[in-house]
Amino acid sequence: MRNYIALPALLVAVAVCAGTPPAPAPNGLELPDGYRDWRVIGSSHRTDNDTLRVILGNDTAVAAARTGRTRPWPDGTILCKLVWKDAVHPAWAQATVPGEFVQAEFMFKDADRFRATGGWGFARWKGLDQAPYGSDAGFVQECFGCHTPMKDNDYVFTHPAVLP
Amino acid sequence: MRNYIALPALLVAVAVCAGTPPAPAPNGLELPDGYRDWRVIGSSHRTDNDTLRVILGNDTAVAAARTGRTRPWPDGTILCKLVWKDAVHPAWAQATVPGEFVQAEFMFKDADRFRATGGWGFARWKGLDQAPYGSDAGFVQECFGCHTPMKDNDYVFTHPAVLP
Repeated sequence: MRNYIALPALLVAVAVCAGTPPAPAPNGLELPDGYRDWRVIGSSHRTDNDTLRVILGNDTAVAAARTGRTRPWPDGTILCKLVWKDAVHPAWAQATVPGEFVQAEFMFKDADRFRATGGWGFARWKGLDQAPYGSDAGFVQECFGCHTPMKDNDYVFTHPAVLP
Repeated sequence: MRNYIALPALLVAVAVCAGTPPAPAPNGLELPDGYRDWRVIGSSHRTDNDTLRVILGNDTAVAAARTGRTRPWPDGTILCKLVWKDAVHPAWAQATVPGEFVQAEFMFKDADRFRATGGWGFARWKGLDQAPYGSDAGFVQECFGCHTPMKDNDYVFTHPAVLP
């Protein structure tokens, strides 16, 4: 009998080692596969909460950013903001660098599906264990509230960084 | 005869529109194709010269960064630092964001070829017109001088940012 008991335990162990996908956000949005490999659109440093950020985009987003089609961003756009707490470079005190990883924040553009929140679906996964943010689907009102002052920029804080 | 005169002019115009590659650096290093599409390794904000930076890497660099093989980085690594002057977000004063593009800085790892400068070849292209930095090949001594204090980190300022 021992083999029949051991096999499920082994499968669980393999699943954990292979990296089980994080739980979806309370509004059903799932963490996009491969977002760490997306290309860069911008960066920011917030002094109100001492965080450094890098903004990535999926292929639709990057194509839009590079051709100035961001008011509005096209359907299919996904923006990803990687957020770290500020740290001081260990050997160059004048440089603020990424410290503890805080969260990855996402905006999914679908003008019809997310009509109630400016055409954007919001989701956030916190920490290295990528715990979805929000106790129920109403969490998006908090996101949308903060983004509403950016209505003239299609509810997006990021302006794509200029590159040659 | 007019066609014979017009054709070269047309070819020049096409070349300009297609984007002629920037001149190589004075040490012969060429701007890598497609560096804008490389994946992110880190970020920094320097308060001594008020610049925001995003550090990208080629495939060799990203694979090394994600598996902790950065002391030393493997041959074939290319690191790219995109540098912008600080700007204030137009609608969120607590955020510093990329303003004017300053330059793209590169480090090419080849322990043998670049033995005299810690195994790294240095190059920098300035501004949106991507003018190579340095009046002659000796410019790398300036680069290497600044990077020498980072000898214990394989002459690299960047520590890859932690990601889930």
